[in-house]
Amino acid sequence: MDTMGRHVISELWKCDINKLNDMNYIEKVFVDAALAAGAEVREVAFHKFAPQGVSGVVIISESHLTIHSFPEHGYASIDVYTCGDRIDPNVAAEYIAEALGSEVSEKMELPRGMGPVGVQHREITTTK
Amino acid sequence: MDTMGRHVISELWKCDINKLNDMNYIEKVFVDAALAAGAEVREVAFHKFAPQGVSGVVIISESHLTIHSFPEHGYASIDVYTCGDRIDPNVAAEYIAEALGSEVSEKMELPRGMGPVGVQHREITTTK
Repeated sequence: MDTMGRHVISELWKCDINKLNDMNYIEKVFVDAALAAGAEVREVAFHKFAPQGVSGVVIISESHLTIHSFPEHGYASIDVYTCGDRIDPNVAAEYIAEALGSEVSEKMELPRGMGPVGVQHREITTTK
Repeated sequence: MDTMGRHVISELWKCDINKLNDMNYIEKVFVDAALAAGAEVREVAFHKFAPQGVSGVVIISESHLTIHSFPEHGYASIDVYTCGDRIDPNVAAEYIAEALGSEVSEKMELPRGMGPVGVQHREITTTK
């Protein structure tokens, strides 16, 4: 398998606070986001923190998706990393941003496994 | 909890090929790396691919560590993300690089949860 990968880092602000604290919802969103992008899900591990916040990962054949949510700040930190060029990680990242009701988001893409790391693409989105 | 986090992205080249294909070894290295940095381990999920390669994650109270290994290329793609300022993700990243016998590595740090993402620190290391 080629080492080439695409790593999308997404900062989601002004999300729906209730969704950010609902582990079952987030887990479903992440699995669905992976499938929407055409990825194959291999492992799923999520953890709910007290008093609030969720961390989790979906390992896909093509790498991973992760989240750390901070409901008290309306913020979620998202990574979508896909190896190869068959899958576009932006599809999953955008699915997640919408599902969490993010009103302000920042997304950047890093190439992985191709030598020096550099920011390839960057955008800031405000939906409302 | 504050949203501030530090995300170290590490590209490990010229690693020990046998170690890159040993899931149990990698899982132990990742848990030990998290502990060495002073993190608290919450969930562990690793997956071995056929014919080779390992993907895995350790979710810590302070965020996560991930790996995707490509033994056939002597390459491993590592992320160490820690929330707060109590833990230095570089400690874990360097522990992993050494444990996998990487001879050429690239490491960069991204701030997370602090507004616009930008590369904060970047270094390339050749050990041999």
